Amino acid sequence: MNILVTVNSNYIYPLKVMLWSLFVSHPGQQVDTYLIHSSLTDDETEDLRRYVGRFDQKLFPIKIDDGLFGEAPVLLHYSREMYYRLYAYRCLPDSLERILYLDPDILVINSLMELYNLDFGGNYFAAAYHDRISLKEINRLRLKGYEVEEYYNSGVLLINLLLLREKVDEKEIFRFLKNEKRKLILPDQDVLNALFGKHIKKIDEVKYNYDTRYYSYYKLKSNGLVDMDYVIRNTSILHFCGKKKPWHKGEGGKFHSLYKYYEVQALR
Amino acid sequence: MNILVTVNSNYIYPLKVMLWSLFVSHPGQQVDTYLIHSSLTDDETEDLRRYVGRFDQKLFPIKIDDGLFGEAPVLLHYSREMYYRLYAYRCLPDSLERILYLDPDILVINSLMELYNLDFGGNYFAAAYHDRISLKEINRLRLKGYEVEEYYNSGVLLINLLLLREKVDEKEIFRFLKNEKRKLILPDQDVLNALFGKHIKKIDEVKYNYDTRYYSYYKLKSNGLVDMDYVIRNTSILHFCGKKKPWHKGEGGKFHSLYKYYEVQALR
Repeated sequence: MNILVTVNSNYIYPLKVMLWSLFVSHPGQQVDTYLIHSSLTDDETEDLRRYVGRFDQKLFPIKIDDGLFGEAPVLLHYSREMYYRLYAYRCLPDSLERILYLDPDILVINSLMELYNLDFGGNYFAAAYHDRISLKEINRLRLKGYEVEEYYNSGVLLINLLLLREKVDEKEIFRFLKNEKRKLILPDQDVLNALFGKHIKKIDEVKYNYDTRYYSYYKLKSNGLVDMDYVIRNTSILHFCGKKKPWHKGEGGKFHSLYKYYEVQALR
Repeated sequence: MNILVTVNSNYIYPLKVMLWSLFVSHPGQQVDTYLIHSSLTDDETEDLRRYVGRFDQKLFPIKIDDGLFGEAPVLLHYSREMYYRLYAYRCLPDSLERILYLDPDILVINSLMELYNLDFGGNYFAAAYHDRISLKEINRLRLKGYEVEEYYNSGVLLINLLLLREKVDEKEIFRFLKNEKRKLILPDQDVLNALFGKHIKKIDEVKYNYDTRYYSYYKLKSNGLVDMDYVIRNTSILHFCGKKKPWHKGEGGKFHSLYKYYEVQALR
């Protein structure tokens, strides 16, 4: 399985936790992690390489020139690295046909093999649709002239490298970033939705991009089916979305104890 | 390490979760589990023996005559089996010098070796003092003429078998149960506190008998020190006290996701 991550120094800590959760959810399975970055030091990438080596896995760091995204907007807790997932198909080895991008604020608690081997059905990406984003957001983009069908979360993104290489000119992405920079709010997601919204295969949010802030919402919407027992048995990816992160002091939430457990196991 | 458990059929399910959490917290360590019971079927004990065998551990079932405790009161979610821990020193092999009794509604999340090897300092038992029990409860016992110094929780109980065999006549326990049956509210704890309160070594509640209902209380009392990070790193025993149990449908709480994770891992 090929995994893509794109972090700066601030996210090395949760990245290790995420990777550990991924490894223990796939015992005996080879997981190659590609790390696209522009600012990590050699010590930092070496430390990460040693870390994944402890679990008999491999890390492939790929340094790129951040100047490529020079004019792209960066807001709040977002960082420039968020754009790299969209450009990854130009930096990764040609031998790779697909790769699964994962945000570092994720826990993998069940197997990803079904997701990983999904049939793209001619799409560039596969992602989950988070339908709690306001219609206002979608309209904002739509009014700007983009055809936004649905609003996909880019934190878990299965990438069809083969098809992107064939069909997409990366200049499109850079042009979009340059022209639309003042309109973007959740920047990389806006790009994903506006440019590629019609080429994304929808995957099950509860299984593959469960937003941990919305336990009650999921439970209510499913008439009680998606309770804690269901989530722990069936969800593969818990996504700790939002500004409050479970590795920060003083945070809470329904999945806080579970995150802390993984964190302590991963970094002991 | 010798572990004592005492369950009826209703508690086999959480017992397996508890034992699994214990085994994975002590990798490579021999854990002998003694199961004192009066009502399990041969199929049930055999199923439990196979279960612990999967983790290369051993189970020793010991069937006793429940008639011994015939007049003891049983209330609410309590069962007769709760008394067996106090009488265990008469049923266990003479070769055992100490044993750690654990309730089935427990998760062991860090090593118990320091607790297990504790110096009894001449006491019969070691247990944690839960100071949220009302003074009224303690006074209730004190007024009846018993010297109740503090109120110990009997869910985690390190037992000095050697000393009990030497010093305590089990008829004392049966006599107490017979005479005081109408005064007992948390029955086995009342017996423990009233009969043996002066012979109990106090152990750290946060480390060895953390009541999962009181996350905010522990945190407040410690000026914020005992937060989730602290608990996951330092607590060995999470005790899911009270009537609401995390393996029941519809329950919640700060440690619900962690319990469910252990439950699913243990029983997959």
